[in-house]
Amino acid sequence: MTVNRNAAKRDEVVGALSRVLAREALLAEREELMPYECDGLSAYRATPLAAALPANESEVAAVLAVARATGTPVVARGSGTGLSGGALPLADGILLSLAKFSAVVAIDALARTARVQPGVRNLRISESVAHLGLYYAPDPSSQIACSIGGNVAENSGGVHCLKYGLTVHNILKVRAMTIDGDVVDFGSAALDSPGYDLLALITGSEGLLALTLEVTVKLLPRPELAQVVMASFPSVEAAGNAVANVIGAGIVPAGLELMDKLATSAVEDYVHAGYDLDAEAILLCESDGSREEVADEIARMIAVMQAAGATRVAVSADERERLKYWSGRKAAFPAVGRISPDYYCIDGSIPRAALAKVLGRIEELSKHYGLRCANVFHAGDGNLHPLILYDANIPGELEKTEEFAGEILELSIAVGGTITGEHGVGVEKINQMCLQFKPQELAQFHAVKAAFDPQGLLNPGKAVPTLHRCAEHGAMRVSRGALPFPDLPRF
Amino acid sequence: MTVNRNAAKRDEVVGALSRVLAREALLAEREELMPYECDGLSAYRATPLAAALPANESEVAAVLAVARATGTPVVARGSGTGLSGGALPLADGILLSLAKFSAVVAIDALARTARVQPGVRNLRISESVAHLGLYYAPDPSSQIACSIGGNVAENSGGVHCLKYGLTVHNILKVRAMTIDGDVVDFGSAALDSPGYDLLALITGSEGLLALTLEVTVKLLPRPELAQVVMASFPSVEAAGNAVANVIGAGIVPAGLELMDKLATSAVEDYVHAGYDLDAEAILLCESDGSREEVADEIARMIAVMQAAGATRVAVSADERERLKYWSGRKAAFPAVGRISPDYYCIDGSIPRAALAKVLGRIEELSKHYGLRCANVFHAGDGNLHPLILYDANIPGELEKTEEFAGEILELSIAVGGTITGEHGVGVEKINQMCLQFKPQELAQFHAVKAAFDPQGLLNPGKAVPTLHRCAEHGAMRVSRGALPFPDLPRF
Repeated sequence: MTVNRNAAKRDEVVGALSRVLAREALLAEREELMPYECDGLSAYRATPLAAALPANESEVAAVLAVARATGTPVVARGSGTGLSGGALPLADGILLSLAKFSAVVAIDALARTARVQPGVRNLRISESVAHLGLYYAPDPSSQIACSIGGNVAENSGGVHCLKYGLTVHNILKVRAMTIDGDVVDFGSAALDSPGYDLLALITGSEGLLALTLEVTVKLLPRPELAQVVMASFPSVEAAGNAVANVIGAGIVPAGLELMDKLATSAVEDYVHAGYDLDAEAILLCESDGSREEVADEIARMIAVMQAAGATRVAVSADERERLKYWSGRKAAFPAVGRISPDYYCIDGSIPRAALAKVLGRIEELSKHYGLRCANVFHAGDGNLHPLILYDANIPGELEKTEEFAGEILELSIAVGGTITGEHGVGVEKINQMCLQFKPQELAQFHAVKAAFDPQGLLNPGKAVPTLHRCAEHGAMRVSRGALPFPDLPRF
Repeated sequence: MTVNRNAAKRDEVVGALSRVLAREALLAEREELMPYECDGLSAYRATPLAAALPANESEVAAVLAVARATGTPVVARGSGTGLSGGALPLADGILLSLAKFSAVVAIDALARTARVQPGVRNLRISESVAHLGLYYAPDPSSQIACSIGGNVAENSGGVHCLKYGLTVHNILKVRAMTIDGDVVDFGSAALDSPGYDLLALITGSEGLLALTLEVTVKLLPRPELAQVVMASFPSVEAAGNAVANVIGAGIVPAGLELMDKLATSAVEDYVHAGYDLDAEAILLCESDGSREEVADEIARMIAVMQAAGATRVAVSADERERLKYWSGRKAAFPAVGRISPDYYCIDGSIPRAALAKVLGRIEELSKHYGLRCANVFHAGDGNLHPLILYDANIPGELEKTEEFAGEILELSIAVGGTITGEHGVGVEKINQMCLQFKPQELAQFHAVKAAFDPQGLLNPGKAVPTLHRCAEHGAMRVSRGALPFPDLPRF
C-alpha cells in the first residue's frame, strides 16, 4: 500500500516536473539519482522522487510551483560537500541541484565585490579575481569543491575566519527565491541595510527559508606577505593554554590551528609536512599583512609561544614552506582516514577559556569508550573538530561513536559553547538542538520558518527539531546507546 | 468623543499598570511625561498614555502583560538619543524606559566579554574595562549618553566601525523578552550559534521584535598606539577620490572621516581643532595597532593622500594632538548648530565608488533649494551625514529641508546604496523604505514581525511601512512638497 502510494506520488511529481523542465534537467531513474543520495555525511542516504537541475531562475520558479501544487518538499543542493546532512534528500521530496548556476556574473575591483551564482566553487572566486590582487577570505577545508551557495546555507568558516570572519561577514547581498517563487534581495551593496537583517537570517539557515540565486561577496586585497609559526608543546593542554595567551595578548592571527600527536603522525606519513613528531601537540599560527606588520606580529607570536612552554618554534622561511606547513592541516581528515577504517568528524564551539578543560575531558571519554580521537581544529575560534576513529564493520562501534560524539557536543553546551562551529546542524545534530535551546527559543525558530515557508516545504526535518521530537529525544537519552535518527534510512 | 475614548483608555491602562508597578516606577501626569515626549529627532513629539520605568525583569513582564491584556502598544526607550524617532512615544501607547537596567553585570577578561544591562551607557562599558587594557569598539558620536540597548536596537556604528564593525559585529548574545513575556537568548558565548541567526535579526530591529534585557559585548585590547593623518584637499571630490584610493590600496584605517569647508569653519570657531581652513575638504585618517604597524600604515596613508592631490598633510604628534583633531569631528554637529538656527542630519550609505558623484549632486541640490549643506561623514564606509542648515521659523523652510533630505536619500538608493548608515529608519525615513524595497520584500519583513509579535504591539508604525502606506506615499510623491508624516503630531 505504502509503496503504491509512493509510486503514485512519484509519478505525479515527475510528470509535473517533466512538463516544466527539459529532459536533461530532470533525473528520475534510480541509477541517475544515485549521485544525489547523500552529501558529505555519507552514512545517511535516501533516494529522492526526482532530481531537478534547473538552468535559470524561471526553471527554479517552475520547480517550486510543482512543489507547492503537489505539496512536495524540496531539498536544495550545491556541491554536496556538507558534513551535517543538510543536503540529504528526502524520499518523498524533490532534490533541487543548483550546479548549473555556475557563472561569475560580475567583478567590481573598485568596490571590491563580486557577484556570483550559487554553484560557483569557493576557490574559483579567489581564482577569478587573483589578477586584481584580490581574494575571497572564507576558506573551508573543502574549498576546492564546495559551492558558495552551500557556504551561505551553512555560514561556512575556515582557517582564516578567526581574523576575517565567517561567510556572513564576507557577503553583502543575496538574491534569493522564496518558496512562493518571488525573487527578493537580502542585504545591499552598502555598509548597512535598513529593515530587519534578513541577510544574516538567511545565512546559515540551511536551506529552510529560501533558495540562493546569486551572492554578492566582499573581496579583500591579498596581503603582501603571510608567514606561519609552528610551535611544539609537551601536552595538548599546554597548547590550549598557549592559544588563550595569544588571543589574550591582543594578537589576531590570520589562522590559529591545533593538531594533536595522533593527527600529526597520521599526516606526516601521508604528506610529509615537516611536523614535530616528538610534540604532543603543535600549533600553526599565521600572520599576514605588510612586511613590517608581519615581522612585528611574528615576533610577538613567538614570544607568547615560548612563554607558554613551547619546546620548539619554527617560522616558515618562504611561501613554499608556509604552504607545506598548511598542507598537513588541510590533509588531516584524509590522513586520519588512512589510519582508521572510518572516522567521524565533530564540530562544536566553546569559549577559548574552556579549551584545556574540554580537551582533557575528551581524552577521558576516548579512554572510556575505547575509541581513538584525533584533535585537529580552529583553536583560535574555540571551534573543535575532534575526529573519532572507528570501524563500522565492528558491530556496535558506530553507535558507540555517536554516543561519544553526543557527549562532546553536550560538553560544549555545558561550558557555554554550542553544537556547531561551521558545519551546520542538518540531520546530524538535530537532537542536540533540544539541549542547546529551550522550548520558547525553538518555538521562535519555528515562527520565523513559518514567516518564510508556512507549508514547511523547504528542507523539512533539518536544522530545527520539532518540540515533539525534543520530547522524544528527552526520553531517548535514558538509553544512551539508541540511534539518534531512528527514522532516517541508513546506509 | 475621541478625547473621551482616549481618556477612558488612559484610565484603563494607567490603572492596570498601577497594580503591577511601584508608584515611582509609573509616570502618568502630563508634566512628568514631558521628558519622554521625543527622542533625538525632536521635531516630532507625542505624549504617551503613561511611562513605565521597571526595575527588574518581572516588572518588564508585568508591563507587557498589561499591554497584551489591554491591546496597548509599547515603545521601549534607552537614553533617547536616537536620531530617527525610533523611541518617539505613541499617543495611545505605553513608553517603557529601561533606564533602571544600568548594571555592568560581569566582566570576563580572558574571554574578553562583558555582560551589561541595556541602560548602560556606551562609553561606560569602555570605562569599566579600561583597567584591563580593554575597550568596546563601536563609538557613536553620542557615546557619552547613548545606551547599549539603544545601540542594539539601531545597530549603531561610529568613527571606528570601518575597521571594527557595527554593533552586530561586536556583540555575542542578547537576552531578550518577547511580547509574550518569555525570556529568550539570541546568540551564544561561542563563535557560532546553531539555528537561525536571531541575534543579527534582533540587532537593528528598532524595538519591533523583542525587548533587550542584557547584552554580552565583545571587548578588544586597547591598541598600543593610535595616530591620525589630517590631509587637506582642494575640492570635496578630490577628498572623496582619496578615500576610494586609501581603501583601494588595501589599507583598513581605524577611522576615515571627511569634513567639508562649511563644517571645518564652523568647528574651528567653536573648538579650535587646528583644521586647515584653506582646504575645501579635509580627511582624518586613523591608524591603530602596535608601534611598528602604525608607523608602516601611516607612511602608506600619507603616500596615498599625496598621490591623490593633498595640498597639506599633518600627522598627530602625540595623543593630545590626536584627540584635538578628533575633538573637531566629534563637535561638528553642535558646531553647525551655532551657525544656523536649525539643522537636519541625514544618514545614508552609498558604495564608496559613488562618493565623488553623490557629493557633487548634493552641492547642486544645495544651490537648487537655496539651503546650505555641511558634509561631515564616515567616508571610509560610504556613510553620508549631510547636515542641511535651515530656519524653522521661516515658513516653508522645514518642508523644503525635508524635500532636500528626501532627494539625498533617493539619490543614495539610485547609486546602489541605502537610506540608513547607522541611525535607523524610525519614523524619519519610513516613506523612503517604500523606495528601498519592493512589495514582496516589505511583505517578508511583515511576516518576520508577525513571527515575533503577531498583535503588532511592539513599536508599531516604525521602521517598516505598511504596503498601504507605500501606496499612499507613491501618490504623495506627485506633489513633492508634502510633509512625509502627515499623521504624526508635530512640535
